[in-house]
Amino acid sequence: CISQDIDHILETQSALAVDLGGTNLRVAIICMRGKVVKKYTQPNPKTFEARMELILKMCRDAMRDAVRLNCRILGVGVSTGGRVNPQEGVVMHSTKLIKEWSSVDLRTPISDALHLPVWVDNDGNCAALAEKKFGHGKGVENFVTVITGTGIGGGIIHHNELIHGSTFCAAELGHIMVSLDGPECSCGSHGCIEAYASGMALQREAKRLHDEDLLKVEGMDMKLSEPITAAHLINAARLGNSKAEAVLNKACTALGVGIVNILHIVNPSMVILSGVLASYYQAPVQHIVSQRALFSAQSIKVVSSDLEEPALLGAASIVLDYATRRLY
Amino acid sequence: CISQDIDHILETQSALAVDLGGTNLRVAIICMRGKVVKKYTQPNPKTFEARMELILKMCRDAMRDAVRLNCRILGVGVSTGGRVNPQEGVVMHSTKLIKEWSSVDLRTPISDALHLPVWVDNDGNCAALAEKKFGHGKGVENFVTVITGTGIGGGIIHHNELIHGSTFCAAELGHIMVSLDGPECSCGSHGCIEAYASGMALQREAKRLHDEDLLKVEGMDMKLSEPITAAHLINAARLGNSKAEAVLNKACTALGVGIVNILHIVNPSMVILSGVLASYYQAPVQHIVSQRALFSAQSIKVVSSDLEEPALLGAASIVLDYATRRLY
Ligand SMILES: [Ca+2]
Ligand SMILES: [Ca+2]
Ligand SMILES: [Zn+2]
Ligand SMILES: [Zn+2]
Repeated sequence: CISQDIDHILETQSALAVDLGGTNLRVAIICMRGKVVKKYTQPNPKTFEARMELILKMCRDAMRDAVRLNCRILGVGVSTGGRVNPQEGVVMHSTKLIKEWSSVDLRTPISDALHLPVWVDNDGNCAALAEKKFGHGKGVENFVTVITGTGIGGGIIHHNELIHGSTFCAAELGHIMVSLDGPECSCGSHGCIEAYASGMALQREAKRLHDEDLLKVEGMDMKLSEPITAAHLINAARLGNSKAEAVLNKACTALGVGIVNILHIVNPSMVILSGVLASYYQAPVQHIVSQRALFSAQSIKVVSSDLEEPALLGAASIVLDYATRRLY
Repeated sequence: CISQDIDHILETQSALAVDLGGTNLRVAIICMRGKVVKKYTQPNPKTFEARMELILKMCRDAMRDAVRLNCRILGVGVSTGGRVNPQEGVVMHSTKLIKEWSSVDLRTPISDALHLPVWVDNDGNCAALAEKKFGHGKGVENFVTVITGTGIGGGIIHHNELIHGSTFCAAELGHIMVSLDGPECSCGSHGCIEAYASGMALQREAKRLHDEDLLKVEGMDMKLSEPITAAHLINAARLGNSKAEAVLNKACTALGVGIVNILHIVNPSMVILSGVLASYYQAPVQHIVSQRALFSAQSIKVVSSDLEEPALLGAASIVLDYATRRLY
């Protein structure tokens, strides 16, 4: 009937996007054009059961709001830390960053609860898809994205497609090792760039300096019970704290050398940094590349993402590109 | 005429293969089945002019022998250290390992001299093609080869094709860095696995120990003026020289960590080690992988090449696969 047709026209084709990170669990309604219509954030629970329960609860809440907001949800895209089999929609294995998160079939419970198709991929891979569809990676045949949050994730686009790898373990860029020794990593190894340069690593170093009374310098305005974060470390360095500066130099060098390794292996034409530390790392990384990469790799562009939410947008993009075709 | 037809039948379709390494310049006649019919070896000259002259001389000599040996040479494949544009047949840039070897059009002079089509690619890439056609890589969709000679080279097969990269700088596996500091490398950087674990690096370390009178141990049979090589280092360690052992442990760890980085970036299902140190490195590398790689990457097979001459065979394979089609 005519009024139904008008409702249909007023609806926006959208996706539900889920992002499971090392700190937060987030759900978003994202429309066809890549706009985040509504976003929900909760701490990511530490147990499997609580996490699954919260995912389903947040998704149901979002579905109700979607109706109200005239968004027609075509499917659910899930971005998660860890190794994912995207064909099966299964999280195979994660590091300590997300506990109790191995051999998890995400597709079935979410699909059963919402009666929608569900796609799952690794968070770095999702970020790469977002850059490809909405960001600097548009039309770029070979690029890599490195997303620095609690941990470090990555995605590789080669000949216009994600490299997933023979056991879905490709583009685990946070676990590129740049030291034969080096700081312990949440993956169980040591010397990984995640252990040097992630938000979590910088926070750990900030706390260490703070505990030794070496963090605060003149000009720093810190409340007594304020939780110590990476931002304090960066601020302290900016205000002349040489120990903080040394930590950050090492972090920049580690990340830069890790990226040089990526250049020497897959030789993309562009590296897109994303996450809250991206703008901080962009110039130092470009500098390390100019210092240490082979001449032929020096033409690389190192840029900062212009996307607010690469993992969520990427998860949404899988839905928006495939929902009509129901391809897994 | 009938006797000409019989001659034709008795001829074997073959390729001329050229291998430009850090130490030697070699030319070989290689038949369709991958057999090295005849091989010529000379030290690789240090200047551009002498090198080009020697390449052409050795190729002409080989062509004369080819006639005598009933080999019908379909074309010339050139394997060389350095970054190569295989579409143009041009060496773009090399490290100090091969001096005066940048912006060199190899195709034109060889093609003009021999009246044959000429293909050029990087030595590690050629080794990967050889493994794909004749070796452990047969039918393997995603594998990587690491070839340890004077330097360290590599090639990546992904979805059955070489990864060349956006500026032909992919698979420069010798220049994967596993230290923020580390030993100086011939590429100008430091901490590269080539600087830890190549034949040249081990020879340098053997000489250093020898100069400090720390190399020779009981049971080692060394002539007075014998040139010191990597083999002496390995032998000394085997006979209980703990300093030699420490050097080799570090080399194995560096190579292993470099390979873990490859696993975490492109996640091949197989790593094929080749070159004279391959059998030495195979078990230590497998061990480092089991210690430091992500769980999902642990199913990797680390094997030793069963090919005598990966670079030459790979160069030949390009000719044998393409000569009838004259595709560049
Ligand atoms: Ca990834
Ligand atoms: Ca190579
Ligand atoms: Zn790690
Ligand atoms: Zn190097």
